[in-house]
Amino acid sequence: MSAESRIQELELTLPPSVPPGGIYKPLVITGNIGYLSGHGPYLGDDKYITGRVGEDLTLAEGQQAARQVGLALLRTMKDQLGDLNKVSRLVKTLALVNSADDFYQQPQVINGFSELMKDVFGEDRGIGARSAIATNTLPGNIAVEIELIIELIQ
Amino acid sequence: MSAESRIQELELTLPPSVPPGGIYKPLVITGNIGYLSGHGPYLGDDKYITGRVGEDLTLAEGQQAARQVGLALLRTMKDQLGDLNKVSRLVKTLALVNSADDFYQQPQVINGFSELMKDVFGEDRGIGARSAIATNTLPGNIAVEIELIIELIQ
Amino acid sequence: MSAESRIQELELTLPPSVPPGGIYKPLVITGNIGYLSGHGPYLGDDKYITGRVGEDLTLAEGQQAARQVGLALLRTMKDQLGDLNKVSRLVKTLALVNSADDFYQQPQVINGFSELMKDVFGEDRGIGARSAIATNTLPGNIAVEIELIIELIQ
Repeated sequence: MSAESRIQELELTLPPSVPPGGIYKPLVITGNIGYLSGHGPYLGDDKYITGRVGEDLTLAEGQQAARQVGLALLRTMKDQLGDLNKVSRLVKTLALVNSADDFYQQPQVINGFSELMKDVFGEDRGIGARSAIATNTLPGNIAVEIELIIELIQ
Repeated sequence: MSAESRIQELELTLPPSVPPGGIYKPLVITGNIGYLSGHGPYLGDDKYITGRVGEDLTLAEGQQAARQVGLALLRTMKDQLGDLNKVSRLVKTLALVNSADDFYQQPQVINGFSELMKDVFGEDRGIGARSAIATNTLPGNIAVEIELIIELIQ
Repeated sequence: MSAESRIQELELTLPPSVPPGGIYKPLVITGNIGYLSGHGPYLGDDKYITGRVGEDLTLAEGQQAARQVGLALLRTMKDQLGDLNKVSRLVKTLALVNSADDFYQQPQVINGFSELMKDVFGEDRGIGARSAIATNTLPGNIAVEIELIIELIQ
């Protein structure tokens, strides 16, 4: 089943296009590899899910933020590629969790993103390599930031 | 000399296969490039070397942790590729050190990993590009996390 | 206009070659993609711009540090490639800002780097995908560290 059909079937609502946060492109393609810039949990109207996980946000709220980053990344892929079915698979995710110093569950937080990608792109194509790490703060105090390398259908 | 022979010559003991820490694949290959997920200093039996370097761990203990991450990465490469000789060289390492706020020796910590890779793959193939950075915490409070891009023999 | 001509026109002074900070190569090329190791704001004579942005350094000082990292990266590209005109474009930047826990303007800091790249390589080739994140500390307490993926003319 195609990613576009799955978006409809799962009744997913993608946020509006993410406003540029600096001097960069949302996606750069070289060969059949696409590099997506770091995205935050964008809600629309210049609003993001903010706060440190393990301090301001619970694990469940962090997972929700990670899922929201995934929706924002899907929006950018759709905007930039025209069609999500041009994505052949996820290659690598670097995921940053705005973390209290004693918070250790970054992988569980980022599963909120990875579950969504698995649901949209499928078990094989939707699961890539991944690193989940912590940071002491993030731009605009967003809860999660994710950058993504994808493979494109040639 | 081949990487497989070097493992034997150096009498290196690789840890058991690293248990999955979330929804991701240990290695994704696209073209002749392999992306290895973030690995920790896995000791087996679900145990990892934990703690903040410069606070809970000394520089030497941090280096030992970085070396252990290297052994875990070698285990994953061997599991996934069947044979370490399929690795033509290291391309790029992103290395995160769980660091006290006033700890500044991340490159020296990560040399514990890079020395091992140099010993196993040789001066030329075993030394890649690298970034060593700090984080205020890491998954499960592991001391070091490393993700790796490798080039494969075609 | 070529990058080499722009360096002259803008009267940019590149710092001396950055001394190796560990066991790694400054640049690894695979196919037509180059991976540059994490660079700091090198001033020459083993001196770097140091300190936490939002605590020891202002936003403007952080931007200056990010720009200095860009100059150091240009030096390494020139040293390693012989000629900056061999760079066809920037692909992806991962930028780390040594940040106070309540500092949220990492993208604005890293614009100091991105403005320089845009000036040297032009609007299209000089602007790539980018992630700007925070860390609680960095090697040698440098203010900014940046690693870079570039595409090379074949």
